[in-house]
Amino acid sequence: MPAMPVDYPVISTDDHIIEPTDVWRERLEAKFQARAPHVIEEQGVEYWTFENQRLANSGLSAMAGRRVEDYSPKAVRFGDMRPGCYDPKARLADMDADGVQAEVCFPTVPGMAGSLFAKTADQDLALACLRAYNDWLADTWCAADRRRLIGQVIVPLWDVGLAVAELERGVALGHKALSFPNDPASLGLPGLGDPHWDPLWDAVEAADVPVTLHIASGAARQSLPLDPGAGTPAQVFITVAPTTNFVVLAGLLFGGVLERHPRLRFLSVEGGIGWLAYIVQRADEVFHKHRHWTKTKITQPPSVYFRRQIFANFLDDPVGLTCRHHIGIDNIMFETDYPHSDTTFPRSRQLVAERFADIPADETRRIVRENAIRFFRLAA
Amino acid sequence: MPAMPVDYPVISTDDHIIEPTDVWRERLEAKFQARAPHVIEEQGVEYWTFENQRLANSGLSAMAGRRVEDYSPKAVRFGDMRPGCYDPKARLADMDADGVQAEVCFPTVPGMAGSLFAKTADQDLALACLRAYNDWLADTWCAADRRRLIGQVIVPLWDVGLAVAELERGVALGHKALSFPNDPASLGLPGLGDPHWDPLWDAVEAADVPVTLHIASGAARQSLPLDPGAGTPAQVFITVAPTTNFVVLAGLLFGGVLERHPRLRFLSVEGGIGWLAYIVQRADEVFHKHRHWTKTKITQPPSVYFRRQIFANFLDDPVGLTCRHHIGIDNIMFETDYPHSDTTFPRSRQLVAERFADIPADETRRIVRENAIRFFRLAA
Repeated sequence: MPAMPVDYPVISTDDHIIEPTDVWRERLEAKFQARAPHVIEEQGVEYWTFENQRLANSGLSAMAGRRVEDYSPKAVRFGDMRPGCYDPKARLADMDADGVQAEVCFPTVPGMAGSLFAKTADQDLALACLRAYNDWLADTWCAADRRRLIGQVIVPLWDVGLAVAELERGVALGHKALSFPNDPASLGLPGLGDPHWDPLWDAVEAADVPVTLHIASGAARQSLPLDPGAGTPAQVFITVAPTTNFVVLAGLLFGGVLERHPRLRFLSVEGGIGWLAYIVQRADEVFHKHRHWTKTKITQPPSVYFRRQIFANFLDDPVGLTCRHHIGIDNIMFETDYPHSDTTFPRSRQLVAERFADIPADETRRIVRENAIRFFRLAA
Repeated sequence: MPAMPVDYPVISTDDHIIEPTDVWRERLEAKFQARAPHVIEEQGVEYWTFENQRLANSGLSAMAGRRVEDYSPKAVRFGDMRPGCYDPKARLADMDADGVQAEVCFPTVPGMAGSLFAKTADQDLALACLRAYNDWLADTWCAADRRRLIGQVIVPLWDVGLAVAELERGVALGHKALSFPNDPASLGLPGLGDPHWDPLWDAVEAADVPVTLHIASGAARQSLPLDPGAGTPAQVFITVAPTTNFVVLAGLLFGGVLERHPRLRFLSVEGGIGWLAYIVQRADEVFHKHRHWTKTKITQPPSVYFRRQIFANFLDDPVGLTCRHHIGIDNIMFETDYPHSDTTFPRSRQLVAERFADIPADETRRIVRENAIRFFRLAA
């Protein structure tokens, strides 16, 4: 089938909410209201403050619509952001302009997978804030258009029983996925493959929702040592950040968790796909050569679990598209990463047209739309 | 041009010498002889011993000719190795059997880039041992056939002036490359991009020899945190080991060293190539988006330096071959990794025939032979 114009809206599987200032305080019971995350201003800088921490909105997290010449990591004020960052109606208008039918939304203040609350000493406060976030996401953000703004539940990572309960509550609220830390060990928690999480994975399988693993969704652990002579470490860090999930996926493939939970499905988020075929190929080779002396836990080559249970998304990745048949056409999905500095907004439509120009139309449709509908169980 | 049978010998750009027992002692002056690296035996295990360290030959380093069912990391005795591991005449016979015309040889006891001696407290002893190795390599190992066994000089990493002198001495001995740690910072040394090394890079450019960066040629630093729940960490470690050079190359591309030394050429060794196109694509994207606020040191997109100065080799990497035009046909080379557990011996000929079956014959010839001849300045 030849390539054809992409005359239908795409689905983006990774976008970010810059929470407005009123998410928490009014929702918490009286005893917690003073301690709720809230915004203060000092010397012209707006900060979120929570339990003696200050969290500024990094400029790189709210660059949608800016020219690259104006990119900056400096704290950005709400008044200087594009309203689509924090206002769901404005977000929907930006999606219309960009040809995006629906997007899967990640939190910012709570951490992309709730790590802020996992580090909070007062667990009652943490749970109240976390539940308030999941509620706000459902009744305010997604409520602007439940078919287009796709919510993900975050869970109390410090207690697997509570996590199961909050997962089930979040799914009942209409959320379509669990956003989980890609590297829980960096938060002092058991690794993804540890049987500790088995009750949560059981609940995830029962609810038939996928688990998203966003790069850098653990703590801010620098997981890759950078050459101290490289001079511009920020560029090196941003270049190699996707490899966080290189290691994460290798751990999943060999850890046995995919064998114990055959209906568990993971999405590697913002890791790109240009390296993905290599890691699966390499894992199979290592399984072939080293399974005997390592007494491997898994019974099938890693690629079998990969095809069945691991998915990955990408923004602008011609190399990944060249490798799409090695990876598996149905294991990859598009994302626009609005409003982060990597975002394809406002030219996602043109980008897709260019990058898929030589790709058969049925493959394009699966990659930019249908795979996401099936993966997140969306209404078509 | 269609694919054709590969009816000519290939060139391997990464193979390993398991040093025989007599490399050092007789070559050192009398005062150092008792302290030279030498082999002892205790309870049936043979160890190299040097300055209170014991180094056993890992079985995984001497698996040529074994079935994967018999792979083991346990210490292996010389008598249980294939003689091609330590005997250059036997090595040449194995190369004949495997269709390999020439191979580029890395040391084992000194570390692949001489790190053992960089960690030795007595620097006079260390320099004597290091020079003895470079001499032995020239007058004994490579002397068995200088056109087929390609030597690489190792240098005293602790003193850049001494390193320059030893590089020049080694090149005069006939060695064709400098084997350098891929991650010198892991040895407590300045990073690859640090101006500290500029005198050495000047000498390398003047000598017109390339620099090889073998994965894991720094210290044994665990450069990637593994999921503690993964259960079989050895398999995860081996799977992700090539990504060491993912970070190394990103550091080189942004570090400015390739701009300061435009004739400096690096070979990423045993890192594979299936991830390589992605990292270069990603580096260009980061340069485009982030060069303004990071005040980047480089003036061209990273891919410009890459095409000119970075090369990489691979064993069995169909994904990498799919990406070969993204990487650059002339930037990639074959290797057999004899006698390590990853080796393609004794079926390198069949492997090349299979993997290159759909690749035009002129591209195949460049990748498995001609690129290496040009890169290492070999006689054709």
